[in-house]
This record gives sequence, C-alpha cells and structure tokens, in this order.
Amino acid sequence: MMRNALLSTFVGLVAAQSSTTISVPTGTPITGDYNGTYRPQVHFSPPSHFMNDPNGMFRDADGLWHLYYQYNPTQLVAGNQHWGHATSKDLYHWVNQPIAIFPPDNETFVFSGSAVIDVNNTSGFFPDQDNGVVAIYTLASSEVQDQAIAYSRDGGYTFEPYEGNPVIGSTSNQFRDPKVVRYNDSWIMVVAYPQDFKIGIFESSDLKEWTATSNFSHHGLLGLQYECPNMIRMPYIDEDGEKQDDLWLMAISINPGAPLGGSITEYFPGHFNGTHFEAVDAAARIADFGKDNYAGQWFYGLSEDENPVSIAWASNWQYTQVVPTGSEGWRSAMSLPRENYLTKAKRVGWKMVSVPYDLSPVMGRELASNDSFGNSTLTVDYSDVESNAIYWEVNITGIPDTGIPSTATVNMTFLSTVTDESLRAGYYLGGDPVFFFDRGNTRAFDNIFFTDKMSAGSLSRDDGSWSMSGVIDRSIFEAFIDGGVDSITNTFFATQPLTMMILSANDLPEDVNVSVKVHALESAWREEESDDGLVRGNTTRTSSD
Amino acid sequence: MMRNALLSTFVGLVAAQSSTTISVPTGTPITGDYNGTYRPQVHFSPPSHFMNDPNGMFRDADGLWHLYYQYNPTQLVAGNQHWGHATSKDLYHWVNQPIAIFPPDNETFVFSGSAVIDVNNTSGFFPDQDNGVVAIYTLASSEVQDQAIAYSRDGGYTFEPYEGNPVIGSTSNQFRDPKVVRYNDSWIMVVAYPQDFKIGIFESSDLKEWTATSNFSHHGLLGLQYECPNMIRMPYIDEDGEKQDDLWLMAISINPGAPLGGSITEYFPGHFNGTHFEAVDAAARIADFGKDNYAGQWFYGLSEDENPVSIAWASNWQYTQVVPTGSEGWRSAMSLPRENYLTKAKRVGWKMVSVPYDLSPVMGRELASNDSFGNSTLTVDYSDVESNAIYWEVNITGIPDTGIPSTATVNMTFLSTVTDESLRAGYYLGGDPVFFFDRGNTRAFDNIFFTDKMSAGSLSRDDGSWSMSGVIDRSIFEAFIDGGVDSITNTFFATQPLTMMILSANDLPEDVNVSVKVHALESAWREEESDDGLVRGNTTRTSSD
Repeated sequence: MMRNALLSTFVGLVAAQSSTTISVPTGTPITGDYNGTYRPQVHFSPPSHFMNDPNGMFRDADGLWHLYYQYNPTQLVAGNQHWGHATSKDLYHWVNQPIAIFPPDNETFVFSGSAVIDVNNTSGFFPDQDNGVVAIYTLASSEVQDQAIAYSRDGGYTFEPYEGNPVIGSTSNQFRDPKVVRYNDSWIMVVAYPQDFKIGIFESSDLKEWTATSNFSHHGLLGLQYECPNMIRMPYIDEDGEKQDDLWLMAISINPGAPLGGSITEYFPGHFNGTHFEAVDAAARIADFGKDNYAGQWFYGLSEDENPVSIAWASNWQYTQVVPTGSEGWRSAMSLPRENYLTKAKRVGWKMVSVPYDLSPVMGRELASNDSFGNSTLTVDYSDVESNAIYWEVNITGIPDTGIPSTATVNMTFLSTVTDESLRAGYYLGGDPVFFFDRGNTRAFDNIFFTDKMSAGSLSRDDGSWSMSGVIDRSIFEAFIDGGVDSITNTFFATQPLTMMILSANDLPEDVNVSVKVHALESAWREEESDDGLVRGNTTRTSSD
Repeated sequence: MMRNALLSTFVGLVAAQSSTTISVPTGTPITGDYNGTYRPQVHFSPPSHFMNDPNGMFRDADGLWHLYYQYNPTQLVAGNQHWGHATSKDLYHWVNQPIAIFPPDNETFVFSGSAVIDVNNTSGFFPDQDNGVVAIYTLASSEVQDQAIAYSRDGGYTFEPYEGNPVIGSTSNQFRDPKVVRYNDSWIMVVAYPQDFKIGIFESSDLKEWTATSNFSHHGLLGLQYECPNMIRMPYIDEDGEKQDDLWLMAISINPGAPLGGSITEYFPGHFNGTHFEAVDAAARIADFGKDNYAGQWFYGLSEDENPVSIAWASNWQYTQVVPTGSEGWRSAMSLPRENYLTKAKRVGWKMVSVPYDLSPVMGRELASNDSFGNSTLTVDYSDVESNAIYWEVNITGIPDTGIPSTATVNMTFLSTVTDESLRAGYYLGGDPVFFFDRGNTRAFDNIFFTDKMSAGSLSRDDGSWSMSGVIDRSIFEAFIDGGVDSITNTFFATQPLTMMILSANDLPEDVNVSVKVHALESAWREEESDDGLVRGNTTRTSSD
C-alpha cells in the first residue's frame, strides 16, 4: 500500500477539491477506453482512474485468474481505496469486473491484502461449498491500521465483511498489507510493520484467530518503509536445470528511499519451518532493476508442481500520480504476469528468475527472424502493428572467454519516425556483461524523479551465451535478461508512438552468433469474449468481437 | 581496485596501442595543469593521467595528511597501476609528491591497499625510528593477486618492498584491497575475496605473518564483486548529541552491479571482538546516494577522540574512462574529505553521518546570506568567483508535523548564463522529505550509463527542521543532507561553466523559516606553498604563490 504520508498529502489534495468522499454504487459495470496512445495492450490497466498494488490474487478451481487491485474509482490520484477486480483465463485477456470490496465508511479505506480459497471451510463461512474465497486486507483510517477479512460465496465477485473484524487489531497506523498462504494445515500470514522494518509472521487455523509466531526484521535495503510482504514456497532449479528441494522466498517492497529513488522490491531466499523464516544469508537481492516494479504479489491456488506466478505494479510512487496517462483517464498498469523460480546464477549465486507467463495468447505474426545475425543492423518497422506492441528475443552464443572488446554491443533502439524520440536498450558484452536501458529521449513527461538510465549487471548461467527478451507495449518496456535472472521494468511516455525497432550488433568477435526474433503482439483489449453473461467492462470492442 | 574483467579489457586496449609497458622514472616530479574547465579547485585530482581508488591514507605525527591513489601515470585510462602520492596540511591544499610505489615488473601491478605507522617497530623494519610507514597492498598479475608490504623510512615518500613478499599468498586472481588498522596490540587486516562476496579478517603482530581469523560474508547488496573493504572504529553520537560507546563499521564497495549501475559503497555498523565482526543487523545501508562515490578509505593515525576521516573516489567504473576531463589530460577526482560518525536517525535507525572536514582553509567571501527567506527566490551570480566553486547551506526550520503540501520545495538551480545548461537539486518536503538531484541538462558528456536523476530519502534527526549543504566545484557536486545522514556525490560535465545559483522556496507553510548562506570557495590549487624544499608537483602556481 501507499505510504501513509502520501495518503495524508493526498487527503489534503482531495479535501481541496471536494468536501465529501465520492461514493461508487455497488455492482456497477466498470468501463474504460483502451484505445489511448499510452494504453498498454497486453498489460493490465484499470478501466479508468487510479490503480496501484495488485491485491488478493488467486486462481480458482476452474482455472480462472482473479486480480484485485488498489483502486480509486473516482479520481486520477491515489486515495479512496477500493479493491478493483478483473478476471482472466490466460492472464492477458482480462474482463473488468465490478468493484469487489468497498470502504466501510468515508474515513476508513480498504488497503492492500490477499485472498485464499477456503476449500475445507476452515473459516466456517462456507458450509455448503468448496469454492469460498476469503480476502484478508488492511482497514486503514488516519489513526489505525487493522487486519480484516471478508468472505465471498460467489467465487470472488462480491464480498461480505466478517462481523468480527478486525481479526488482528492494532493501535498503530503503520501495520498493513497481509499476505496469506497455506502451509500444511495452517494459514500463514506475513504483514508489514512498515516503519519498524519488520515483517510479522502469524498463524491461524480458521483465518479469524491469528497468533504471532515471529518477526523477520531489518534485512536488506530498508528504504523508509517495508511494504507488501510475500512469503511463498519457491521451486529451486539448479544450474543444470535439475529441480531441487523447494525453498521459500520472502519478498519485501520498500518505499520511499529505494536506491534508484522511490519504490523497489527486494527478495530473500530462505527456509520456513511453520513459524520462522530464515534467509539463506544477509544479502539484499533486487527483484527488478527498473524503476517501475513494485508491490508484486503471487497468485494463491497454484499447485506445488507449478512455478509461482506473480504480477507487480508497474509504477513508482515518486511520479505515479502525475504521469501523462491521466489525459486518457487512467493511471498505472500492472507488469506482465511472470513465472518465478530460484536458481543459482554463475558467481552471484541465488537469483529469482522472472520470465513472462506463456505469451502465446497474445503472440502475433512474426515481424523478423534471423538465426545468424553478425555485426550488422536490422530494422523492424512495426507501424502497421495495430496494438503498437511487440515481443523481441535475442540470443547471443559462441562467446569466447576472453578477447571481447569493451565496445562489443548488441542493442536496440525503439523510435518514432515522426519525432526523434527513442528508447535505447541492450547489452555491452566486454568484461562483465551489462544490460542498459535509457528512456531519456522521450518527451511527453518531465519530472524530477523520472530517472532516465538504468542498468542490470548480468552474468550468463551457461558459459558462452547470453540472452535478452522483452515486450514494448505503448508506455511500458519490460525486459528479461539472461533467461530472467535479471529483469527491468520501466514506463516511458513519448509524444508519438514508437513504431520502429533497430537492432544493432557491433564489434562482436567473429564466432559469436546472434539470433533474433520479433513478433507483433495482439491487443488483449480488443478480442475479449463475454461468454458467461456477466456485465463486462471493456466497452471498446471492435468488430472482431 | 578495478574489476579484473575491466583490467582484461583495458590490457587488450593497451596492447593494441603499445607493445611494451611505459615506465616512469622514480623520483620524477609530477606536474599538472589545474586550470582546466573541469578541474575541481577544492577537491583532489591527479596532476595528470588516470586515478582511481584512494590508497594508504594516513596522518603522520606532524599532522601531515598522506593520500596515495591508484595511478596510471602514462595513460588516461585505468591500468599500469602505481601508487601516486600527495600530502596536505589541511586536506584541501595538496602537494603532489613523486610516485610512491612502482610496479615490480611489467606484468605485476600495485593494486589498492592501506598504510600504517609502525611506531613500535613491530615489523622490525624501523630499528631507529618511530615514524616508519608500512604500506600493505595487492600485487596483481593476470594470474594471481597476493598481499604484499613495503616499508618507508622517510615518512611515506619512498618505499622498499619487503623481500619476504607476499605476506599473504594466494592461488586466486580475486583477492585484494587490504586495509589494516590497529586493535589493542594487534594489526587487523580486512581484505576482499571479491567474487566470493567475502571479506577476510586477518590478524598479525608484525605485519609479516598473518593469521586468518574469520570471514564476513554475503551481507547487503552483492553487485558482482565486493571490493575495498574498510573496518574501523566509529564513534556513536546519539539522537541527543551524546557520545555513546564506539561501534565498529564495515564498509564494502561493490562494482559492477550497483542498483544505480556500476559502483557504490555500503556499510554495516557492528561490533568487532578482535577476530570477528558482527553487524548489528542484516540491513544494507548505502554510503552515498549519488553515482560517483566509491572505494572510500579512512585515514590511519587519528586518535580515538577524533571522528574518523575518509576520502572516496568520485567516479563510477561505468564511465570513468571516457569522461571528458581527458581533454584536459586527467581523469577522476576524489570526494571531499569527510568526517564520519554513527548516529540513529529518526525512524530508520543506524546511519553513518558524513560531513565535510573543516572547510575553513578554502572558505572564501560570503556571496549571499539570508536568515528569513520565505517563499521566494534568491539569485547568486558567482561568475566573478575565480575558482568557479562555491559552498552553500540551507536550513529549514519551523516545519509543522502535518499540512505540508506535496508541492512544497526548497531547491537550487546552478546554471550557465551562456548556454541553458543546468543542475537541479533540492528538497521536496511534503510527506517524507526527499532530496533530488538532476544532471540531465548538462551536455558535454553523452554516455549510456551517465544516469541523470537520483534522490535520497531523508528524515530529519530533529523534528521540524531539515538542512542541506554542499559544494559545487566545476565538475563535482557534493551535497550533505539533513546534517549528513545522507549524502550525494555526482560528477557533471557542462559545455560552459555554471556560474549562477538560483535558490527557490515554494509552497512552504507560513511559519516555516529558511536560512541561506552561500560562500565562494578559494582554489586550493593556486595558493600552495613549498616550505620544505621537496619537489612539488603543482607547476601552475599563480603570482599569489
């Protein structure tokens, strides 16, 4: 959840605009225009107004993915927090659902949290069903933050607050963002004491009575607050691709005060014994080297045979409330859905791998393919791709151990042919390879915190080969480096669409091979079906529906 | 020391230019031109060619400060590592001395390390004197990195290698940067196993025989290498200004792979018992929120009553070898000398404070002073300040607990009146105050890694007041935020000198008071005296000498 101080600021701003909280009727279909220049076409963004953290994510027994999110349904800045809701069969084609959880009153808001499916009716809310959903979230006023629950008997569309709330009371206004998982026969919650830099671990048998079992404290970068903890089982796939015993992973988002400014997420591989989480070491590992990846959450309801799947908020509190998407009536998008697992990368050891969840539902026609790309240049004009979104993939093999000049590079420029705006990204390969990204040459947004250049140190897991892949989607650039051991998520705002990609390889030694593949992505917001009769939000369907 | 891979790259580049190592005669006076547009006037920079890490720093019994540094005396890029040397009575006015330590052969170089004064002749090198100096450094070839020592009987100007070198042998080419301190009757060394992310702690009675006592491992950000460790006693001055029991501090530089890209330094407060260092927690704390502060070292030879004094390298391996100062015949400067101590800042707890060492030796005339600066603007034209360097200080008091609008700001622009180039820096005060810095609007240097915007979260140690102060010195901007609990060091390269400062305060609540002080700084490179007959390097003295 957003920092409390920001809330205060916001409340001040809102108060100046309107003397009463604007309420939203229940069950209203949420609609939006997904045609704007900045609107991502394969990423989730809210139908209108302001969104932040992903909340309550779960996949139901029918395989339907439920995404909730911190939502201000009446304004383009944070505040007035509801839980927005959307569902998807594939994590790309989303159906906007009516708001799922509403603030109980004008001074108490529904902050971030999680959801579980109470198959065995441990809570007692679901005597006649095995698909009851319990949401666990923070009720926040300016005085106090408590943990509360609400239950849904219709599979997650509407929720009834538990009359015994709060389930974990407090006297602090800094206690939030509960994330619950199943562990053996228990429910386990992690929840942040943000300004104490502690993650509390609680145990419950019924989701109502919670017992504190331990705290995980002062690990990694502190920033000025710990927020949005996740603690989940995480597969470990070793250097040779062999699956080893699972570990657990603690992820903590910090804001403000990240090294790049504002918001960032870090993670800690470790072990959980039912009451305590112990990290493998005291190292701080950063989940994403961009400036727009925060508050990631993992879906509940996946089996232990699957890789966990996460979605993060693709923005940064330093500038999220002023980005120019406001002119299109919405602010903030989510990251791509990602599969995650742990591996040990060459030299640096433990790394959480992030790769896009199966993109095939949105994968479009091939725009370019070249399996033996030497020191040369490839231009891909994607101005006729209706979504203005593409997927690219570059694999570099046959790299010698030594003798790579410091000028050796494989890089991409995404540019507008109307203005001279561009993004630059790619590898420098001499010495320790590094992936760079630069959004400095886009001009639709000027903000003192909108850092231009980032980089991710990257080491191949297999000697002699490096890879990079990613998606550029109107106002989001997301790259997965060296098989996903590093990733970089950044928003960008150009005055004109970027419609041309230039791939360039220079000063590579002779035997190095570069293979390239570029595909159009098909808009997930133009194809959606309404096959169950519910009112859906996307009102901008084209004739292809 | 620079990363090995970079060395390989460099060696390749050099090989292309010259088939033999260029040698430098001993005792040669080192000269340089300190008049260039980019030449810092109150920071140390080498007389010519390429400098990186500070090395061997100590203060002798006469109060003379000795600074050594990684030095390539023949080229403008890293490599061919010698120990350059300079001395100062005040840490601002430096006298360039002849090179102190030379590579033993054409394939073995003298990497980073430290120096101690062996008052009691524990080493046996100094039977007749109490001012013997022992340098402890890494001898590095492409195959192996060993720890070696050399002794100086003339107070640190010339050194004789110990015939028993190495004192700590190895079979690894990743083992470097020894830093030695005195602890009771022992010498204690910390030294990096960079790619194992371990700091080895060794003990010796004579500086020749060393015993490994423990490792400090996998703490904080790893980057791709740990380098240049320091472990020193550090005073703890609590929130109320009371001196408490000293702690120890472990500082580790990481490169590459910092969150901002490239090089950064982190530190860990803790306790040392003679054999083991234990951090107070597993938090990662960053020494400086800029992109140009690395490999800091603390001076040996200060008493326990004094605050430790450090100097860092004010650059970043991502671009240091291509910055435009090369056109003036030199590359890289050091940070300001800084006094350091530990405190506990509001909310975030342990912080290492950095404040400039007494600036009075270079403090010049007052350019502006205003004790009751409201929501207004102050313009300081410093085009007639010969050094083109100024000191500024802003104190903000009377800040209410709530009700500060998010637009409230006290900020500075440093600009060229010839071009429209500028730097921007300052506070946003709404919510959690944040200090921002932007070098994006300077145009003498274009590099994919030259990140424009940084920020440091800052929390006042005393409720209701914030402060910022700093120095702008031709191509270095260094700021100390909120009494030094955060700092930010950044180089910048404008095509024309920045000669005007505009201070602006906006949207502050009524009772907030801002006081401002701006002083010229006097060039430390034009006033220097040669009062002991030694050959000095600065040949660009003006008539004022």
